[in-house]
Amino acid sequence: MPKNTSPNAAILIIGNEILSGRTKDLNSSYLAQKLLYVGISVCEIRVVSDNKVEIIAALNTLRKRFDYVFTSGGIGPTHDDITADCVAEAFGVQLPINDEAKKIIASHYPRGEADLNEARLRMARIPVGAALIENPVSKAPGFYIENAYVLAGVPKIFQAMVNFVLPKLKSSSPIISRTITISKQEGEIANDLSQIAAKFSPLSIGSYPFEHKGNFGVNVVVTGKDLNQINLASDLISKI
Amino acid sequence: MPKNTSPNAAILIIGNEILSGRTKDLNSSYLAQKLLYVGISVCEIRVVSDNKVEIIAALNTLRKRFDYVFTSGGIGPTHDDITADCVAEAFGVQLPINDEAKKIIASHYPRGEADLNEARLRMARIPVGAALIENPVSKAPGFYIENAYVLAGVPKIFQAMVNFVLPKLKSSSPIISRTITISKQEGEIANDLSQIAAKFSPLSIGSYPFEHKGNFGVNVVVTGKDLNQINLASDLISKI
Repeated sequence: MPKNTSPNAAILIIGNEILSGRTKDLNSSYLAQKLLYVGISVCEIRVVSDNKVEIIAALNTLRKRFDYVFTSGGIGPTHDDITADCVAEAFGVQLPINDEAKKIIASHYPRGEADLNEARLRMARIPVGAALIENPVSKAPGFYIENAYVLAGVPKIFQAMVNFVLPKLKSSSPIISRTITISKQEGEIANDLSQIAAKFSPLSIGSYPFEHKGNFGVNVVVTGKDLNQINLASDLISKI
Repeated sequence: MPKNTSPNAAILIIGNEILSGRTKDLNSSYLAQKLLYVGISVCEIRVVSDNKVEIIAALNTLRKRFDYVFTSGGIGPTHDDITADCVAEAFGVQLPINDEAKKIIASHYPRGEADLNEARLRMARIPVGAALIENPVSKAPGFYIENAYVLAGVPKIFQAMVNFVLPKLKSSSPIISRTITISKQEGEIANDLSQIAAKFSPLSIGSYPFEHKGNFGVNVVVTGKDLNQINLASDLISKI
């Protein structure tokens, strides 16, 4: 993690489908990159199952440890969508039908409120004290309460919600990173790299080996907020 | 999660690169799918930064809660590769140079042990009590100690290590899943689906909405071990 006093965040992905490996989690990398632009570092990602005890425990841990926690998934109308229930319980508040949310959801259907069956009404339940997050794609809103932002799991909706939420966060100067690709094995560059990392200790310098068609190389990623220092370190690394 | 007494597992992904969103985590979905075939359910995935305190805390939590924990990343030769140190500390054992690992790593270089600089020797440090995990790609081994399996981060190496490790795990009958795709919105099927889920409660029935070119649909995934029950539930769901 960049060593600075930027706000930090955790991402909590909710859903058995990600844990089974059948569905790839596209949301956390999208959000993490967006947060870097506004100077917020993601310090932990957790994926938990659609289980009330697990979700509440993870949410309570993460919201207390980090400045922000963003959840993804479990806010739809089906029996396995229990995120709103868990958030309400974690914060110790009620989960009534929210009139504003109900109106927004009804506007999505031809007959308005007459089309709101029990399942769809579930999506209008919002914890007391939470504010809504717009969903321009399929209407049913997300919400945020204190430092917890509760977003949909479908990537297109998740992304729209992220873009609604970003301007509301306490941002700081962007976290910049530069990648230097070196066509050597890590073992050849490790000693020099270690010295540069020690010299530029306010920066975070990471070494990520890769293999491409039988050739090994290393991506060295220099991350921080001081562009001048990043440039100096990058120059030295590119000469290893 | 499938409601049965299958062994369970957690995956701990170590690395700032995943947290920054620049690198996609391909390893957890690969491993999760392989584990399902041998009847092991992944119940949690965590991604933490290259930070000793964070790694040790996550490892200790996960290894105590689950039958298995698999780590990915941080076992290379550079300054930010600290996974072996963290595992040794978590288990309270020393981390000496392991003769077998040293020989294996030396065999990768033209001049053998003469080519083992300080950085490469770091990769031969193995916690006392651990056994090695073969790395057919670039030699430097992973290892396992008690229920913790420590694997590389580079996907090609990670995958080879997973395949080495799988036969060593306590497997059970495979966890089977069937996906039924329904071209309706979740709100239309939620009530019926909820009743089927209640009727077939030993199965796990998940509902995953998707959006494709403006059309919404739902993948319903039925998971369990009893093929007959899975077929019965799937038939009912496909008729919703």
